Amino acid sequence: MPRDLAFTLAGLRAAYARGLQPEAVIVEAFRRLDALGDPGIFLHEARAQALAEARALGAPDGRPLWGIPFAVKDNIDVAGMPTTAACPDFAYDATADAFVVARLRALGAICLGKTNLDQFATGLVGVRTPYPVPRNAIDPALVPGGSSSGSAVAVAQGLVGFSLGTDTAGSGRVPAALNDIVGLKPSLGALSSAGMVPACRTLDTISLFAQSVAEAWELFTLTAGVDPADAWSRPLPPPRLASLPEAVTVAVPDAASLRTFGDTAQAAHFHATVERLRAQGARVRAIDLSPFYAVAELLYSGPWVAERVAAVGSRLITAPETLHEVTRAILAPGLALSAVDAFNGLYRLQELRRVCAQALEGADVLCVPTIPCFVTREEIAADPFGPNSRLGTYTNFVNLLDLCGIAVPTGPRADGRPGSLTLLARKGEDGRAAALALRVERGGAAVPLPADAPVHAPTSDEIALAVCGAHMAGLPLNGELTARNGRLLRPARTAPHYRLFALPGGPPARPGLHRATEGGAAIALEIWALPRTALGDFLAGIPAPLVIGTVELEDGSTVKGFLCEPHGLRDARDITASGGWRAALAEA
Amino acid sequence: MPRDLAFTLAGLRAAYARGLQPEAVIVEAFRRLDALGDPGIFLHEARAQALAEARALGAPDGRPLWGIPFAVKDNIDVAGMPTTAACPDFAYDATADAFVVARLRALGAICLGKTNLDQFATGLVGVRTPYPVPRNAIDPALVPGGSSSGSAVAVAQGLVGFSLGTDTAGSGRVPAALNDIVGLKPSLGALSSAGMVPACRTLDTISLFAQSVAEAWELFTLTAGVDPADAWSRPLPPPRLASLPEAVTVAVPDAASLRTFGDTAQAAHFHATVERLRAQGARVRAIDLSPFYAVAELLYSGPWVAERVAAVGSRLITAPETLHEVTRAILAPGLALSAVDAFNGLYRLQELRRVCAQALEGADVLCVPTIPCFVTREEIAADPFGPNSRLGTYTNFVNLLDLCGIAVPTGPRADGRPGSLTLLARKGEDGRAAALALRVERGGAAVPLPADAPVHAPTSDEIALAVCGAHMAGLPLNGELTARNGRLLRPARTAPHYRLFALPGGPPARPGLHRATEGGAAIALEIWALPRTALGDFLAGIPAPLVIGTVELEDGSTVKGFLCEPHGLRDARDITASGGWRAALAEA
Repeated sequence: MPRDLAFTLAGLRAAYARGLQPEAVIVEAFRRLDALGDPGIFLHEARAQALAEARALGAPDGRPLWGIPFAVKDNIDVAGMPTTAACPDFAYDATADAFVVARLRALGAICLGKTNLDQFATGLVGVRTPYPVPRNAIDPALVPGGSSSGSAVAVAQGLVGFSLGTDTAGSGRVPAALNDIVGLKPSLGALSSAGMVPACRTLDTISLFAQSVAEAWELFTLTAGVDPADAWSRPLPPPRLASLPEAVTVAVPDAASLRTFGDTAQAAHFHATVERLRAQGARVRAIDLSPFYAVAELLYSGPWVAERVAAVGSRLITAPETLHEVTRAILAPGLALSAVDAFNGLYRLQELRRVCAQALEGADVLCVPTIPCFVTREEIAADPFGPNSRLGTYTNFVNLLDLCGIAVPTGPRADGRPGSLTLLARKGEDGRAAALALRVERGGAAVPLPADAPVHAPTSDEIALAVCGAHMAGLPLNGELTARNGRLLRPARTAPHYRLFALPGGPPARPGLHRATEGGAAIALEIWALPRTALGDFLAGIPAPLVIGTVELEDGSTVKGFLCEPHGLRDARDITASGGWRAALAEA
Repeated sequence: MPRDLAFTLAGLRAAYARGLQPEAVIVEAFRRLDALGDPGIFLHEARAQALAEARALGAPDGRPLWGIPFAVKDNIDVAGMPTTAACPDFAYDATADAFVVARLRALGAICLGKTNLDQFATGLVGVRTPYPVPRNAIDPALVPGGSSSGSAVAVAQGLVGFSLGTDTAGSGRVPAALNDIVGLKPSLGALSSAGMVPACRTLDTISLFAQSVAEAWELFTLTAGVDPADAWSRPLPPPRLASLPEAVTVAVPDAASLRTFGDTAQAAHFHATVERLRAQGARVRAIDLSPFYAVAELLYSGPWVAERVAAVGSRLITAPETLHEVTRAILAPGLALSAVDAFNGLYRLQELRRVCAQALEGADVLCVPTIPCFVTREEIAADPFGPNSRLGTYTNFVNLLDLCGIAVPTGPRADGRPGSLTLLARKGEDGRAAALALRVERGGAAVPLPADAPVHAPTSDEIALAVCGAHMAGLPLNGELTARNGRLLRPARTAPHYRLFALPGGPPARPGLHRATEGGAAIALEIWALPRTALGDFLAGIPAPLVIGTVELEDGSTVKGFLCEPHGLRDARDITASGGWRAALAEA
């Protein structure tokens, strides 16, 4: 009975390795949901479909998300489920998975349903929905945060291993802070937006919620990649966790521009966490955040409100009663804006981007509180706008400035409420923000390094490479792979018609793998993932008679890998019988 | 007396080397202007200032533009001169040089004055000005072309060594074609736009007119660079003339989408020039230009008209009579556009960008006529709009798609009018467009290749790769190299102990190179340079039994290159005696 099983990737994988059946996990997930008795989390529950998928999984097959339950914000399509964007009148039945959902399911993950949100993803509070409001997982007196309210709460309550949100102005970060989980907001264009209901199309991205930075990061590596069918998809560096210097330069708001709206515990916690970074060797640079706030101002006072109007279509004019009253009030001014206003807003943004970029020059990461203060349901009931705006203090400017970021729990504040920082980096530098997040996660205490995080498939930006000799883990040339951000995917064996030879020369001693014209055996090797862009440099250092070609594996699949020209085997010793280089070394 | 002196950079430099004084050049320039008797070219003549600057130059000091007279379009600031944008009521006295002007003057160039334009750079004809219309330098019956009319004519008439224009929708290219000179339209953000009156701020760039591609390119290298004070400035690769492979892939409009509006001489000339490229080894690929035309449609029927309204400010409402009547008519609809329209236009563009980028995949350059046909002053008098639109056929889409390009004279058409092609490339690839322009300039006749053009060694960012089969220039798989910016370094031969085999299978037919354990011969191959970052992607597509290893060359050096696993040679035919794949294909 997995009642106390942590629904993390690590927890579930370990349980599956011990023989747990996915069906039991799905049953347990819905048992937990029923026990919780919160009707506001899911707008659509896919109990039967999830159970059927779990049963159909069969035996573990090595896919990295095999049997992991997840939830999807209800402005992202999942085939066979309705998409509502929390507007019942808008609802349609999705006939295809969003690109990211399709990828997750192909990796073995099981979707439990669609989660609640601030209608049309307009809000940071989670209460702007015609459906029941999800309960905050920490304290029901607090708002759940939004707009990705249900997805954040589902992870925080341990109902799913991870979930998808979206983030235009902070919807993937604010609810993470309010529910004490991790929210990863990718660089715009890193994850395909195909199959997502737009909020502000130029600023939207799908985002990821998980229990730890390591798991959020792994999910990012599994979902990032160019989608040729999505106009907003764009080529970015392959996701890789940066190796930050200890003396990383971290920009933080200076005293005059840190805003906490009287929440002294938040200010104290922020300062303490920054001091911990400094104690770890970081160079902390206080900057004036005013130009960033000026950018944030543009989001709702500038022309981007018109993007939200464009997303909602003619509904605002023809059927305003189908909109949540607060949503309607926010969108209405967008109708009055002219195209000249829109371009003048873009010009103002362009100028502020220049100023903000210069403020960040020399800094590796910008570190801010995820939220300036907490907001209660009572406060938002009394004023539906002000507290919502306050929550966006440190998030509203981010997508407009083309930054990426990750909201990370930093342990409890003095009053027991959860602390959270957001680490922000330039577009394409997601791995830099995540690497620094690891240093502060839950006070720096309980964090498994993602080096251990198992990812078994190359991303679209990597190439799988079979190594059979001195490049294997722990052997003398392995550094040539790790220095290029190579990572071990899995051990494997060749098809049973290869020969392995100990080559003359060295150190280091090296073997040569050769596809035999007759006979041969299955030879042990390791499959590594190397960023595609790094292969040229790697290959330039490979001496004759070694080559890189195509290796057939035991299961019939093929992979690029090391082979050896036959003319180099003349004085070599046949060690095929050892079954592999490690065994041969042990025998020697 | 320099009356017959060519006012090119080369001509002026040679004359200065012989002892000519800059003052004499300035005197001669204004003598030529007076002799021409065309009051429409300059809106402001800086005779006294130019003479004083020439006198102050002293002895030649090695600055690259020392004593070179130039002209500046009157929507770019020159300190001490009025800026009018061809709208007298708009005029102001510039107190500082535009960034680019300041840089040119710092390099020794002398500004002779400010040139006429279509008001607020809105037009491609050059007649939309309250001032006298400049005379076309080829045929006064033709429009001068615009909006950079005066700057183009000043170069074409030999009044200046070069001039500055601007280009939003073709204003830096169309008048080049109409006056038989070179017009270089840089990548957006390559040249600072500080000190330029905007037309559509998101699409504007300063552009360069010169007598030859080599001189336009040199001017680009002297003016390109990041301006930290300009929000539109952006980091781009340093200007470098690409070393194109002979088998450069050139996209051209297919027969159905080539538009010449009945100008058969233009169509014939275009086809002939493309055939010349093909004869030089280019791989010509016909593509459907329809999505590019759909982009062009957006420029005046979509929200970008509102950018022009934004540029003109409140004038359109408060003082419409101060605008040229045609300009007014074009701008007026921009007032009615909403911000929602603006964003919907941006979305439409984003989608079309995706489609156009895919159409250009694998192509190095897009080659189009600069103009589809000629336009006479009589035609534009009869219809101020239609003929203007036609002139933008091949230019209107370019800045919206973030392409760069160069308009180059290709020699006379059958009817004696000047031919012109525009070579277009992706942002930052200005040097690629210019390199191809050199091959067709004035029929390929009169152009010295710039000294830095041929590069026969790989750069530190490239890896040399020996190919011996279908990847060689002109053969079926060569596009896999050129699409990744591969370039041919040189032909070569292996050391004399390799064997070449024709592999079973295909198409395409492929050979396998194998280092023989005894015997063998020297096999012909080609050495290509491939960006190191592209090798992983390239290798991923190479099927077994081909591998990449180390090949020994005739001169004893080694290079990475294609080889073949011996197990793949079992059913292959030994063609070593042919000496190489090309010879084997010829024998077959």
